[in-house]
Amino acid sequence: MWSEPQPFVVSVSVKTRGCDGYPDEDSDESYNLSVSEGQAVLRSVTVWGALRGLESFSQLVYQDDYGSYFINKTEIVDFPRFAFRGLLLDTSRHYLPLHAILKTLDAMAYSKFNVFHWHIVDDPSFPYQSRTFPDLSNKGAFHPFTHVYTQSDVMRVIEHARMRGIRVIPEFDSPGHTQSWGKGQPNLLTPCYKGDVPSGSFGPVDPTVDTTYKFMESLLKEVKFVFPDSYVHLGGDEVSFACWQSNPNVRTFMEKMGFGKDFTKLESFYMESIMNMTAALNRTSIVWQDVFDYHEVKGHPGGPFLPRPIWKGETYQAELSRMTKAGHRVLLSAPWYINHISYGQDWRNSYAVQPQNFSGTEEQKKLVIGGEVAMWGEYVDATNLNPRLWPRACAAAERLWSDEEKTLNADLAFPRLEKFHKIFTVCILYKENM
Amino acid sequence: MWSEPQPFVVSVSVKTRGCDGYPDEDSDESYNLSVSEGQAVLRSVTVWGALRGLESFSQLVYQDDYGSYFINKTEIVDFPRFAFRGLLLDTSRHYLPLHAILKTLDAMAYSKFNVFHWHIVDDPSFPYQSRTFPDLSNKGAFHPFTHVYTQSDVMRVIEHARMRGIRVIPEFDSPGHTQSWGKGQPNLLTPCYKGDVPSGSFGPVDPTVDTTYKFMESLLKEVKFVFPDSYVHLGGDEVSFACWQSNPNVRTFMEKMGFGKDFTKLESFYMESIMNMTAALNRTSIVWQDVFDYHEVKGHPGGPFLPRPIWKGETYQAELSRMTKAGHRVLLSAPWYINHISYGQDWRNSYAVQPQNFSGTEEQKKLVIGGEVAMWGEYVDATNLNPRLWPRACAAAERLWSDEEKTLNADLAFPRLEKFHKIFTVCILYKENM
Repeated sequence: MWSEPQPFVVSVSVKTRGCDGYPDEDSDESYNLSVSEGQAVLRSVTVWGALRGLESFSQLVYQDDYGSYFINKTEIVDFPRFAFRGLLLDTSRHYLPLHAILKTLDAMAYSKFNVFHWHIVDDPSFPYQSRTFPDLSNKGAFHPFTHVYTQSDVMRVIEHARMRGIRVIPEFDSPGHTQSWGKGQPNLLTPCYKGDVPSGSFGPVDPTVDTTYKFMESLLKEVKFVFPDSYVHLGGDEVSFACWQSNPNVRTFMEKMGFGKDFTKLESFYMESIMNMTAALNRTSIVWQDVFDYHEVKGHPGGPFLPRPIWKGETYQAELSRMTKAGHRVLLSAPWYINHISYGQDWRNSYAVQPQNFSGTEEQKKLVIGGEVAMWGEYVDATNLNPRLWPRACAAAERLWSDEEKTLNADLAFPRLEKFHKIFTVCILYKENM
Repeated sequence: MWSEPQPFVVSVSVKTRGCDGYPDEDSDESYNLSVSEGQAVLRSVTVWGALRGLESFSQLVYQDDYGSYFINKTEIVDFPRFAFRGLLLDTSRHYLPLHAILKTLDAMAYSKFNVFHWHIVDDPSFPYQSRTFPDLSNKGAFHPFTHVYTQSDVMRVIEHARMRGIRVIPEFDSPGHTQSWGKGQPNLLTPCYKGDVPSGSFGPVDPTVDTTYKFMESLLKEVKFVFPDSYVHLGGDEVSFACWQSNPNVRTFMEKMGFGKDFTKLESFYMESIMNMTAALNRTSIVWQDVFDYHEVKGHPGGPFLPRPIWKGETYQAELSRMTKAGHRVLLSAPWYINHISYGQDWRNSYAVQPQNFSGTEEQKKLVIGGEVAMWGEYVDATNLNPRLWPRACAAAERLWSDEEKTLNADLAFPRLEKFHKIFTVCILYKENM
């Protein structure tokens, strides 16, 4: 029996203005969605909440075998469990073309991720085309023209993200992980010594010379200008001390500063300096767990610390406990390094993670502001990014958005991941191939 | 300095005719390639050897930054170490669209694979659209129109493969792995019993009734008609005996045949019957290792057995040793189930495999006619097939083509896999996305 298509009205009402702004850490993403006969009413406080609601609405619509669209009556009151739901892409170990980043943002919106952590540069390459220091990418990118992100590319990423309610937090990781920086910025890295003579290789950023801080200040000023988000990730992880130790100027500086033989103090001195710079630029800095592990930097601006997998035999729960006890806001990433693939349904491991399941007070638990999925780039480029990322990342996204008690059973999440796979991966990402 | 482009002549001479034929197990794939100033001379015995030589030639050509093409002087005398270099795709657990199969064939040619083992049907679905039994796919495919391989699709696969010197060996696996067959072919599968009554579920093909053999004969006749290769894979793996055991008719049949309680005898009876049918159709049957493990079928036509991962605590080396001792030709697949992904450069495990490295005589070693990479489909569809397959499968391809002593060092193979990744995966498969 054929029946006349029914008109259907979706009305969206948003309490506050802000269509031309950027989502931030305080953005209210809650929404109410009411679907009844012939109409849907979506109410939210902000445009970001409206985007989340429209995403849910679109996922409620289904199509029958004859092409007609349907939606069931429903009442939804929805809001995120955590304010920070991030995804890290690493564009240094392998370059990711712009379209791969844009498609990732599309997929993120589907899963209500709201932070794109852009690990944009690292040892292998420096693809960010700086307006202040063009030689950084001219000499440090895999290719100076084809494997860079121009200013207009970066603007496009930020705008594409904004339209989906996603923040873009760039990471300029130092003082370690900076081999590629040294190619375009002479005298930035520490010359390593073999005995009394320079060995020809270079170590971390040289924290003993003024030129380093002048350079970092200019770079951070540019970063502030280019990236609107109030957070900047400063890295600070995995600094190897061997090269610093070999360098006579560094040793002299250590003595002068009274650091003794404790190179963690030198690292902290450096990190504190650039964190203070960042604060002076009215930006909140994020640093990796290491900066907390080595030395609790005094008087830093109190940005959240991102825990990362503990390579010292500790569990991340212990780390969460210690960091929050020290009053730090934290983001959980350790159990969500999903670049580490394995056979079968390994998304279940991500899903089983409970970010507040560590020993600590209620106050401590509140310091967990969210988490992020990391897709490090050692073995990932545009040819395998999507199948490694989706729908596996959705498991963490659901963990970070949804109520804990309603999402204890992974078997119930399975059909949602299947649907994501079918709709997003198959229909959208691979449309041209199918 | 600009220099005039030089004319370059490639001459190909082939000793025997055969452009309109199909490659087979005896095809001579050797070739000699001589590149000197202004010309390349390629000589081979067959067109298949010429294809291998042209593949090598094209991989020797490189392009400089200004777009000019170059090739170095070289002399190549080349031939395969093993005659059977296969790759298995499983199109039952997930349907693979035609283009995914065709692109896999393109990539196979690049690595000199010469057998496409098409595991076309299995428990989850029956996508092969049979002309004799259309209900098999009408009722057993995931979708009767969109998730099937029509006769013209199959012809296209076979022709696409032929043009690349690749054989297509279909697998119609029975008596186990046939749940999807039962949907379109009533009375084919064994009804399982719970006590004295049928439970409503079905087990393997029913080997006790004439209709089964009539059906199998018609199906195999069609297979012979559709697939030109002289080999047909008949499966025979992982047959569960519980359902047969529960069925009173099967028990009566066992008694009548004097099989006692040994259901491996029943399986062998079935396998022997369909292997005899296959021989009568002038086709060589391949069966999985199980058929050897359970019971050495007497008087079967001596087709090669495909070892598969040993789940009984044995190593594949022991299995190779036992099978070749019994005089069987074998294909090694066990260590090349590369659907089992893991983090990092796991292609090195594939590369380390030495198919003749087992205890046995020289005669036994010669019975290893090759091997095949298997990409089972539990977690694989068109969205992740290519990145899981390439360049990882190239490691086994090189092991199967190249001289053992010249390919002991995986580090020397690494740049070749990198080049494959760049040229094939990035430039060809993902061109539209990059």
